[in-house]
Amino acid sequence: MEGDPLSALCTPAFVVDVDKAKRNAQRMIERCQKLGVQLRPHMKTHKTLECADIMTGGSQRCIVVSTLAEACFYADHGYDDILYAYSIPFDKVERCAALSERLALFQILLDHPDALEQLRKRPLKDGRQWHAWLKLDCGNGRAGVLHSEPGALKLAEAIAKTEGVELTGVYAHCGNTYYCTGVEQIQAVAQETTKLTLQFMEKLRAVGITCKSSIGSTPSCSHPVKDMAQLSEVHPGNYVFYDVQQSMIGSCCMEDVAVRVLTRVIGHCPHRNQLLIDCGWAGISLDGAGKLPTGYAVIEGHPNLKLLSMTQEHGRVEPISGQLDYSKYPLGSLLILIPYHSCATAVMHPVYHVHSKGRLVGKWTPTRGW
Amino acid sequence: MEGDPLSALCTPAFVVDVDKAKRNAQRMIERCQKLGVQLRPHMKTHKTLECADIMTGGSQRCIVVSTLAEACFYADHGYDDILYAYSIPFDKVERCAALSERLALFQILLDHPDALEQLRKRPLKDGRQWHAWLKLDCGNGRAGVLHSEPGALKLAEAIAKTEGVELTGVYAHCGNTYYCTGVEQIQAVAQETTKLTLQFMEKLRAVGITCKSSIGSTPSCSHPVKDMAQLSEVHPGNYVFYDVQQSMIGSCCMEDVAVRVLTRVIGHCPHRNQLLIDCGWAGISLDGAGKLPTGYAVIEGHPNLKLLSMTQEHGRVEPISGQLDYSKYPLGSLLILIPYHSCATAVMHPVYHVHSKGRLVGKWTPTRGW
Repeated sequence: MEGDPLSALCTPAFVVDVDKAKRNAQRMIERCQKLGVQLRPHMKTHKTLECADIMTGGSQRCIVVSTLAEACFYADHGYDDILYAYSIPFDKVERCAALSERLALFQILLDHPDALEQLRKRPLKDGRQWHAWLKLDCGNGRAGVLHSEPGALKLAEAIAKTEGVELTGVYAHCGNTYYCTGVEQIQAVAQETTKLTLQFMEKLRAVGITCKSSIGSTPSCSHPVKDMAQLSEVHPGNYVFYDVQQSMIGSCCMEDVAVRVLTRVIGHCPHRNQLLIDCGWAGISLDGAGKLPTGYAVIEGHPNLKLLSMTQEHGRVEPISGQLDYSKYPLGSLLILIPYHSCATAVMHPVYHVHSKGRLVGKWTPTRGW
Repeated sequence: MEGDPLSALCTPAFVVDVDKAKRNAQRMIERCQKLGVQLRPHMKTHKTLECADIMTGGSQRCIVVSTLAEACFYADHGYDDILYAYSIPFDKVERCAALSERLALFQILLDHPDALEQLRKRPLKDGRQWHAWLKLDCGNGRAGVLHSEPGALKLAEAIAKTEGVELTGVYAHCGNTYYCTGVEQIQAVAQETTKLTLQFMEKLRAVGITCKSSIGSTPSCSHPVKDMAQLSEVHPGNYVFYDVQQSMIGSCCMEDVAVRVLTRVIGHCPHRNQLLIDCGWAGISLDGAGKLPTGYAVIEGHPNLKLLSMTQEHGRVEPISGQLDYSKYPLGSLLILIPYHSCATAVMHPVYHVHSKGRLVGKWTPTRGW
C-alpha cells in the first residue's frame, strides 16, 4: 500500500498529512522555546505513538494524557514524565499508584480534599512520592477548584503538607477559548487565565509554597500572550491536527488542518436533489451539529455542498443552492471531508492512514478505551 | 473479574445485561416464527460474535451487516449466508467478489445500473453467481431506487437478465419508523412499506420474475403487521439491545433496554449546581442531542438529573430543578446511564462488559472499521 495515492484507500478513511502534522508540531515547539515555557503536548486528539514522537520532538518525555489507557499505552512504549490530567478517579487510584511506582515521573491531578485522602490512604512503595497537580478552574467551568474559592489555597497547602505527596504544580485548562472568535478574543482569555493562575502562584508563595504552573488549550497556545512566559508549562494538544473548529476560532488557517476523511459517492437521489456518501456518523462523528453552513464538515473543493444529515454509515449531501449536477459526482467518486472537530473524528477510526504529498507512507494505530 | 459485581469495573464502561439481550433476541425469533418469515438479524448495533450467536439462535447463518469489515469478521469466524446490506461501494467490489467466491452464500445490494455494470465487469470464478438484492426506497428517504420510479422495475429486470448475477430479492429499510411515536404510527409505516414492497413484487411477477423480499427496522419488527407474513425475510438489529430512543418510539419499554454506561462522579461544582462524571462523548456519543428532558441519556434511578453537556472525557450533570444534594453523590460514586441510541454508544467502546443479574460473566469484543 505504501507509495499508493490516497485514492487507493477504501472509504471511509481517516487520513493524516504527515508534513502538515510535523509543521504544526514544529511551530508549537518553536513558539514555546521562544516564549521560554516547557511544552507538554496533549495526546488525547490522536492517541498514537507516531504522533507523540512528532509532538515531543522525539524525546518521548513530558506528555499529558486524558485517560489512564493512554498513560499505560505510552508507559508501555518507553514514554515517561506523563501527566494524567484528569481529576484522579477513585476507581483508578491503584492503577495510578502502580504507574507512579514504575515510571520515573508519573503525575496526577486533583481538585478535592477527598482525592487527597485517597492518595494518603495509598502510600507509594520505596519512599516514592505522589506527584500531584492542583486543578484550578480559572473560568473554564469544567473540572477544578474555583480560583476565587478560599478552599483552593487550603487544598494546595494540604497537598503540600501531606506526607508522601508532592504539590507538583497548578494546572488550569482554558477550554473557554473554544468560545472565542479571532486572536483578540483568544488572547483575552489566555491573558485572564494566565493572570489568575499567576495570582494564585503568588498566594502560594506568600505561604511559602513554590511549584510549577501550567495552562493550555490549542487556541491560547497557538497565539500565546507574553505573560504566559511566566508559567512553567503549557499543554495544548489538538494543534497537531487542527480542524475546522480551530480555524473558525482563529487558532489556525484551513491550510494548517492536517486531517481529512475520504468518502465516496454511493448513491444518487435526484428526487431529493441529494447525493449519498459512505461516511455516516461512524466515520466523522456528530460533533459540530448546527455549527457550519456546510453541515457536519467542510467538503473540500465543493463549497456549495452540505453534509446535511447522517445515519451510522450513510451521509446525505445536498447543494446549499441550486440543483446537483450528478455528472460531476459519479458513483464511486471521491469526496474529501475536513472534520469540524478532529478529536471527535479521530476517535471513530481504528486506524489512521498517513500520507506525504498525497502518497501513502504508513498507518498509525491509536489506543482506545479507559 | 468473572463473578464480580458491576461496581468492580473501572468507568466509563459499556455493560450488557445478557439475560435481557437473550430475552429480546428470543422474542424476535418467536415473533418471526409466528409470523412465518425468516429473521435475518442485523449485526451493526453490536458487531460481536457472542451477540450474533444469540441473535441467530446459534445457527451462525442468515445475518445482515452494515460494513464489509463486519462481513469479513463474521465470515472469518464461521458465519455464512451473509447479506452486506449497503449499496455496493465501487471501491469494495473486489473484496465482495472474494467473499462471494469463498462463502456458500454472500449477498450484496444495489440500487443503480452503474453498480450492476460493476458486477458484470467482475464475473465470479467457478461459475458462481453474484447474489444481488435490489434496494428499494419505500419512503425512508435514504438509499434505494424509489419504488415509484419506472427505473426500479427496469433495474430489477436488468439484474435478472444479467449473466452471472442473480436477483436474490428486493430489500426495503423502513428507517422512517424512527420518526414514529407509538405502535399505531409504527404499524402505519410498516404497513405502507410492506404494501409498496408487495406491490413491487407483484409487478416483478407480472414480468416473470420471482425473488425474495425483505423489509426491516427494529420498530416495525417489534410490532409487525399481518401483511409482513407475505414477505420472505425481515432484518431488524437494534432490538437485541434496544435503547431510550426505541422506548420513546414505542418499540419496547425501558425495562427491555439491555445496555448501560457505568460512570462515576469525579467532581463537585456547587458554584454551578453541577456534578462532573467520567463519561464524556467518548463514552456515550453525541447522539440524542436535544431529544430528552434528561439531556444525552437517562440517568437510572435519578429522574431529576440531566446530562447537560459533555466534552471528550467529562460530562456535566445538573438537577432539572432544585439544588443538588452533594451528600447523595460522593466523589467516586456510581451513576448508570441508559443510552439514547445504543448503536452510537456501543461504537465508542472497544470492549463490552457482560453481566447476568449484576455479576460479570465475560467480555465481548466488537469489530470496527470498514
